[in-house]
Amino acid sequence: MAAQRYEDSYLYRLRHSAAHLMAQALTELYPGIKLAIGPPIENGFYYDVDSPTPIREEDLPKIEQRMKELAKLDQRILCISADGREAARRTILEETTLGQGEEVAEYKLQLLEAIPEGESITFYDQQRTDRDGVKHRFIDLCRGPHVDSTKEIKHVRLMSVAGAYWRGDVKNKQLTRIYGTAFETKEELEQYLHNLEEAKKRDHRILGKELGLFMFSPRVGTGLTLWLPKGAVLRDTLIEFLRTEQLKRGYLPVVTPHLASIRLYEKSGHIMTYRDKMFPFMEDGERETYVLKPMNCPFHIEIYQSQMRSYRDLPIRYAEFGTVYRYEQSGEVAGILRARGFTQDDAHLFVRPDQLLDEFIGVVNLMKVVLDKLGLQDFRVRLGTKDPASTKYVGHDDNWQAATQAIEQACKSLSLEYEVSPGDAAFYGPKLDLMIKDALGREWQMGTVQVDYNLPERFEIEYIGEDSKPHRPVMIHRAPFGSIERMIGLLTEQYAGAFPFWLSPVQVAVLPIADRHVEKANELLATLRDEHHVRTEVDDRRETLGKKIRESQLHKVPYMLILGDRDLEQGTVGVRSREKGDLGAMKLEEFLALALG
Amino acid sequence: MAAQRYEDSYLYRLRHSAAHLMAQALTELYPGIKLAIGPPIENGFYYDVDSPTPIREEDLPKIEQRMKELAKLDQRILCISADGREAARRTILEETTLGQGEEVAEYKLQLLEAIPEGESITFYDQQRTDRDGVKHRFIDLCRGPHVDSTKEIKHVRLMSVAGAYWRGDVKNKQLTRIYGTAFETKEELEQYLHNLEEAKKRDHRILGKELGLFMFSPRVGTGLTLWLPKGAVLRDTLIEFLRTEQLKRGYLPVVTPHLASIRLYEKSGHIMTYRDKMFPFMEDGERETYVLKPMNCPFHIEIYQSQMRSYRDLPIRYAEFGTVYRYEQSGEVAGILRARGFTQDDAHLFVRPDQLLDEFIGVVNLMKVVLDKLGLQDFRVRLGTKDPASTKYVGHDDNWQAATQAIEQACKSLSLEYEVSPGDAAFYGPKLDLMIKDALGREWQMGTVQVDYNLPERFEIEYIGEDSKPHRPVMIHRAPFGSIERMIGLLTEQYAGAFPFWLSPVQVAVLPIADRHVEKANELLATLRDEHHVRTEVDDRRETLGKKIRESQLHKVPYMLILGDRDLEQGTVGVRSREKGDLGAMKLEEFLALALG
Repeated sequence: MAAQRYEDSYLYRLRHSAAHLMAQALTELYPGIKLAIGPPIENGFYYDVDSPTPIREEDLPKIEQRMKELAKLDQRILCISADGREAARRTILEETTLGQGEEVAEYKLQLLEAIPEGESITFYDQQRTDRDGVKHRFIDLCRGPHVDSTKEIKHVRLMSVAGAYWRGDVKNKQLTRIYGTAFETKEELEQYLHNLEEAKKRDHRILGKELGLFMFSPRVGTGLTLWLPKGAVLRDTLIEFLRTEQLKRGYLPVVTPHLASIRLYEKSGHIMTYRDKMFPFMEDGERETYVLKPMNCPFHIEIYQSQMRSYRDLPIRYAEFGTVYRYEQSGEVAGILRARGFTQDDAHLFVRPDQLLDEFIGVVNLMKVVLDKLGLQDFRVRLGTKDPASTKYVGHDDNWQAATQAIEQACKSLSLEYEVSPGDAAFYGPKLDLMIKDALGREWQMGTVQVDYNLPERFEIEYIGEDSKPHRPVMIHRAPFGSIERMIGLLTEQYAGAFPFWLSPVQVAVLPIADRHVEKANELLATLRDEHHVRTEVDDRRETLGKKIRESQLHKVPYMLILGDRDLEQGTVGVRSREKGDLGAMKLEEFLALALG
Repeated sequence: MAAQRYEDSYLYRLRHSAAHLMAQALTELYPGIKLAIGPPIENGFYYDVDSPTPIREEDLPKIEQRMKELAKLDQRILCISADGREAARRTILEETTLGQGEEVAEYKLQLLEAIPEGESITFYDQQRTDRDGVKHRFIDLCRGPHVDSTKEIKHVRLMSVAGAYWRGDVKNKQLTRIYGTAFETKEELEQYLHNLEEAKKRDHRILGKELGLFMFSPRVGTGLTLWLPKGAVLRDTLIEFLRTEQLKRGYLPVVTPHLASIRLYEKSGHIMTYRDKMFPFMEDGERETYVLKPMNCPFHIEIYQSQMRSYRDLPIRYAEFGTVYRYEQSGEVAGILRARGFTQDDAHLFVRPDQLLDEFIGVVNLMKVVLDKLGLQDFRVRLGTKDPASTKYVGHDDNWQAATQAIEQACKSLSLEYEVSPGDAAFYGPKLDLMIKDALGREWQMGTVQVDYNLPERFEIEYIGEDSKPHRPVMIHRAPFGSIERMIGLLTEQYAGAFPFWLSPVQVAVLPIADRHVEKANELLATLRDEHHVRTEVDDRRETLGKKIRESQLHKVPYMLILGDRDLEQGTVGVRSREKGDLGAMKLEEFLALALG
């Protein structure tokens, strides 16, 4: 059973009403302010306003204070239907301006014009009568719904101020957007604010810098990640883990270029459907036009097509850690979670229709193995199916049905719970998305599996069946990580930088207490690195042991091995764990058994 | 002691004279033919001609026959100096046309014009007097030198016909280029022709297809390699080997994007010096211009500069298997030996001047380890130094001297013989190139080490010295393979596709004799792959053992393990080696000891 949708919840209405309440407070505090739009959003609400005096973050407590006062006045929130467009216009000009003149209604009038003919037009009115019997109102053009009274809005917090273009168009005026949030209980609000603080500490952009994982540079460009040594090791470790798992499962590695003639993407159709996400083309006059690769799939199809395939050759599973480039809006770029270049742990499976179920089971099983290894056990599975009302889909109905059934059956055979989300399929086939919940309860969309009937059709790929006739294979696109970048971003926040031992860029820091212990420390490093493949560093600086320990702890190194006189005498190391502190002196073998398990 | 340069050798003159001899034959056989240029080249000579009737490969024996007749006539080859430009012009018009009219002198007249004022102008004249006392001459504008008589040209072979633009400019007329070769002895000619045949069999483009290593596709584009599964494994194996060696030596892996803002390459100067090798730019109107990465260095500098460095931090060695893209002329692209995209086994070492020698020793030592592992022991080392006469170099003289000395000292301390090649330095510093001789005696330029004073200067990179003042580090660029693509091309030709065991994409083929042995074969595969990391395939087709063996042999798999009834009973495998044939039945452990050593 699907849970209640957020859009249908009381919380959603509460936040919507909180946005109106903020607008009311702003109208009082900033006379002449023009209101634009104020919707509830995922974690709260905002209102875009055009204020005659600038509103800054330091003004938020004052606004919040006035909101609380207004809330307590128990204003009734009533819905008023306008009797036609002209009446609505009059209401806007006369009622919503609070006597501030017509000009302040500028945005509301534009919103009114955008309401399609025939649709009902409503206002919400916050009413109260004061002790002297005077009636006060705050009326706003709004589709609703709202809660019944402002007194229900008890636990509210204004969060931040940002710029936002009117109607999201950079050619329009930039308005001030004020973000806030509201909850039903004090505890929920406090938990939310605490999680935000925690999230800030875990912000992968900050940790990425502190831990030396990656960087950006203006001379290189927005959203183009440079991986520093420790981040590169993390990448390699993730790739190596998945590569090994894939080899066991019969995947075949391939490597393809980062650009291609535009003809490849004309053939695939991406030039039609995906152009606005592609980097500017490389045009060589009358000769060739090249495009940077936004997707690996067409390359894998070229490889499939390079020779005749028989039914006995299938399934063929091409895997590539393929770096793709997408020209995201610079405002949408966010660290490595949404970058302009990222490496997909991509694979394309070319399968016979009768192999779809088995292959789907194999893919979902691999995804479970991956998430388990990464310690991401809290996930839900969303099956995106066709929206029966839409005509945007390609492929035959019975193919869709067969594929959807195969996916459902695969989930069942793996005892995976899933929820069906009609309309969330790709236009070319149904898909399964993994939604991962992190340590703070935030949900991330990560891995994906998609069935594709479109590209095999466009490229007219074939295999020769047992009947000696050509048949069309089905393609499965899949990426258990989603992308290396996004996965490292998530893992950084999930573990607050304290990665599990196997993933840690530096697994062991050897800390010689004095210069006379450095030689032994370097021997230990060579043994650990070359014999046991443990990523080890020696801190041979002339610093106090205390400082060395603090820095290793800051860099979240899982184990420190401390070397002093006694250790040299007794052939031991002083073991210190990142989580548990001092574990005492041990023989190297003991430590290895502890660390490597 | 440097050997005699090819340009100064008798062989070089012999081939030059052979080119003239061919021109003489052509002039007789194709009346009205226009001669352009005819130089000796690395393995022979060519002449570019503009012929009134097309010349095809099947015409070559006839031309070669006439050359041999003309050679035997013992024509004396004499040098004639022209008495000024006007006299030379008259000679061209009157003498070199052999009475065919002035028009045939078209290209020669253009060549004459291109000779700088004041330079001496010479002709070479092949003269003979026939039995009737009539004097015959063939005169060609030429700088020489030549051999003394045509009768010295005994061992000649015309090879092929190709198109070539006059003066190498596509806007000019396309001429016919006829390639030939000549040697001093019959044995040398035969050896050369034999090697050519052998080289054809080893051609990496043909083997690459047969062995399923890589492919190209017109929809992807010229020179853009798609690595097929077996080639991808080969790449990964090479990369993994070098990565491990580099980790042992303190290299730090980094990963950088395949494009950057043009600003990065403006700063590095590549936009000035390297633009014609770069792909067309990606221009987004007034906003940003991006360029595809032709070199990794500027990215590594950005990483170096991302924080303050102290003298204690140096040397810093950033290593990246970085794919770069260079817009080579499509005519120059040759399989994976010269592609438009390739992966450099790149590293940049940022070192203090006092560390240059040690770091150079380390780098050259690593290169030796690499070549040894690859079985490429036959190489020579070329030290490119400054041409004292040129002013194109950047950096102080004492830096150059120190760097050149460090390189020489490094070679000496490693007992490496090297030859000094003045003028072969990069403009930014001296360099060491590895010239590898393959199984056919062909020389390939592979790995390189370069000292760079230019980029540190341009980017103003620094470290804080022991004196607390900023100092400028030196950069070393190095790539032991050169590029993965080029190295795989060379190795494919060197081994004629029969790669050493550790490099073979498939190391073991398990061949079950009948269906009832397939289960055991798959068990064996799992054991070999998962426990011993041996790349294994099972050939479970219903084919005869003979056919299975032939195909494994064709795919140059080092070992075949044959499974029949007796093997199942006795717990053995029938071992067959690619080189030595049947090795008899063995226990698996015995085979592993044999194969893994």
